[in-house]
This record gives sequence, structure tokens and C-alpha cells, in this order.
Amino acid sequence: MRIGELSRRSGVPVPTIKFYVREGLLPAGELTSPNQARYGEGHERRLRLIRALLDVGGLPLSAIAEVLTSIDDPGQPVHEVLGVAANRITSAEAAEPGSAEEPGSAEAREEVAALLARRGWRVSEDNPAARSLAGVLAALHRAGHGGFAELLDVYADAAEPVAHADLDYVRRRVAREDLVESVVVGTVLGEAMFGALRRLAHVEASARAYGETGLAEGVGRP
Amino acid sequence: MRIGELSRRSGVPVPTIKFYVREGLLPAGELTSPNQARYGEGHERRLRLIRALLDVGGLPLSAIAEVLTSIDDPGQPVHEVLGVAANRITSAEAAEPGSAEEPGSAEAREEVAALLARRGWRVSEDNPAARSLAGVLAALHRAGHGGFAELLDVYADAAEPVAHADLDYVRRRVAREDLVESVVVGTVLGEAMFGALRRLAHVEASARAYGETGLAEGVGRP
Repeated sequence: MRIGELSRRSGVPVPTIKFYVREGLLPAGELTSPNQARYGEGHERRLRLIRALLDVGGLPLSAIAEVLTSIDDPGQPVHEVLGVAANRITSAEAAEPGSAEEPGSAEAREEVAALLARRGWRVSEDNPAARSLAGVLAALHRAGHGGFAELLDVYADAAEPVAHADLDYVRRRVAREDLVESVVVGTVLGEAMFGALRRLAHVEASARAYGETGLAEGVGRP
Repeated sequence: MRIGELSRRSGVPVPTIKFYVREGLLPAGELTSPNQARYGEGHERRLRLIRALLDVGGLPLSAIAEVLTSIDDPGQPVHEVLGVAANRITSAEAAEPGSAEEPGSAEAREEVAALLARRGWRVSEDNPAARSLAGVLAALHRAGHGGFAELLDVYADAAEPVAHADLDYVRRRVAREDLVESVVVGTVLGEAMFGALRRLAHVEASARAYGETGLAEGVGRP
């Protein structure tokens, strides 16, 4: 297809496509005449991935280039490619591990280790998500809401079926780019989807507990 | 207590406390001599709430002032105070409702309405979380991942027990400020907690599906 059709099918403007080619994010099309190039389905798929990493994952172009390099290296096993992508997406939002001096961070890391052991989850304590969870627990304790951390297993019970459904969705993909794309989309939009559903369920739970007026009648009325 | 002790107990520096008093976020202490004031537990609680709204909720000072005004208005029912707080916290992250022309947004709103009806959740379609969910669904469709939206009920099944546990946590509070604080902390840190747990559960689900090497061996190896 010509660049115009590639633009129409992908929703990416022609000048932006040319910019991606110049920056090395997208391979150049096959020249069919001195000033015309042909693009294929590979280009369309790559464009979709770039937009998912950019618009959904919020990655800077330098990080996108790193993920694409890792996809294009045939010697790199798929789980490492997915690791590069997942860590890039989550590193922006992940809480810092916390220095040893920061109050509560050692206890929080122990809480995470105990959770992993209790549930039999084979995850390294150095995993970015484990460090992120420790950051959340430390923040809860610092804010005087250590009691909220007691909900950890309720949350973990809920996370398991969601993670299995996510994995089933990803497993339908075969190509490396499609796999990475579905991990990006599932990680970011899945998180937003759960957040919105949780808040909707709050409204319903509140209505059920206190009648149609929600929290108004039951609690804290002066 | 004196301002120094208030600072020590709350972890908020003295100049910052004075700034909050000047800005009207914190009531002035009771003057015990021309240049000394006494602060009470109410000041400590208010400071904790300001920090939670600021550090955890990421709210600008103008929005914090609005939440505090709503707390201090004895005529305002608690559910409205909670509504002000919850909407302020979530409006930054919520996807825009999407204009009628934006492709897929009308369908996404219908999907949300169908979900609410199917689950019997008594939530207005104008609720910010409902609009946020519609935004996520529209983004999934636009990204070519409409199939992920089929996981909606798996996610909703997981969100219900989490929302009930959250509500139980909030209901332990009596004072209006404590209620609002626990809603802020629970909404923001609870979301981060679930996100981290979901990603940990991904690693374990992947290990279980493909053996110790995770996704590496099973899928997409070229």
C-alpha cells in the first residue's frame, strides 16, 4: 500500500509516519519509483505498537526505541522482550524502593516477602511490582493507615483471576509485536478499567449499606 | 501543644504549618501569649488530611481548600463531602467523556450502561467513574483491542469484594475528616496496591502456564 493508505488505516498522519521512519522507529517502505514507496502489513502493525506505547503506555520515544530494538533482535527471548516493555511501562508509576533509612520501608519489604511466601507466588522480591507494592505499604504506614494493609489478601484474591484472564488474552497472540502490544494495552488500560469498576462498585456497595442515599445517612453525620 | 511539637508529631515543617495557616487551610492556634500559640488534636488531624490530599491524592491547594470548606460546612451532608473529595481525586485521571463525534464513544457509553444494568449497580451513567470506564472502553476499541473489553465482567467480579472491603475500612471512621482521609487514601493507594498485586499475579500465572521461565518458552518464540 502507499503511505496515504497506511495513514488512513493506522490513523497516523503522513508527516508523523515520515518522522518515525527518519527516527528509525519504523522501517522505510520499499521504493517502487524514485519518489514512491510501498508499505506492508508489517508497517501497519509496527505503527499500531508505536501508538500503543506512546498514547497508552505514555513512553518517551527513547524508551519506545529500546523496546523496538529488543523486539527486532532475534536472539532475545520473548520473555526478555516482554520484561523490557513491562518494566518501561511500570517504572514511571512504580514507587521507589526506598532507602534503608526511610522509615517503614524495611518492614514493608518483609510484608511483601511474607505475602509472596503465603500465596506461593514465585516472584523475586526485586521485581519492580514487588518494590512498588512495598512502596505502597510503606506509604500506608507513614500516613497512619496501616490498617488498610490488612486488606492485602482481599486484594490479592481479586488480582489472581484478573491476572489469569489477562494472560489468556495475551496468549492468543503469536507475533512478538502483537504480544508486546497486548501486554502494554492490558497493563495500562486494564489498570484503568479495574480502577473505574472499583469506584463504581463503591457507589453500589455504599447504596446497599446505607440505602439509596449512600454514605449520607449511616456514617459520621454530625 | 506548641507548633514545634505539632511539627514533630505530624512530620510537617514549621514554616509549612505557618503557610497553611496563612492560606486558611489550617485554623490558627489559640494565642497563649503575644507570640505563642497552642495547637490541639484537631490541628494534627487536619494537617494529616492536608498531607493525604496533597501527597497521596495529588490535589492542588485550590482543590484541597474546596474539600476543607465542604468538611467545615455543618449543613453539608457527609455523602456530599465524600463526593467532592472523590470527584476531585479522580477527575485528574479520569478519561474525558469524549465528544459525541469521537469514534466509539457512544458505543462505549452503551456498553457501560449495559454493564450497570446487568450487574444491578445503582450508579448514574453521569458518574465520573462511569465516564472514565467508557473512556477506557473507547480507547480499547480504537487501539484494536476490543477483545480486552470482554474481560469486563471478570474485572467487575474482582472489583466487588474489593469495594466491600474498602467500604468496611471507611465505615470504621466516625469524624468527617477521618472519613474523607480514608476515602482519599483508600482510593489512591488502594488502586496502586491492586495494580502491583495484579502485576505480581501475572508473573506467577505466567510461571504456572509456561514453567519456571515464564512466557519465554510457550509463546511467540520465533
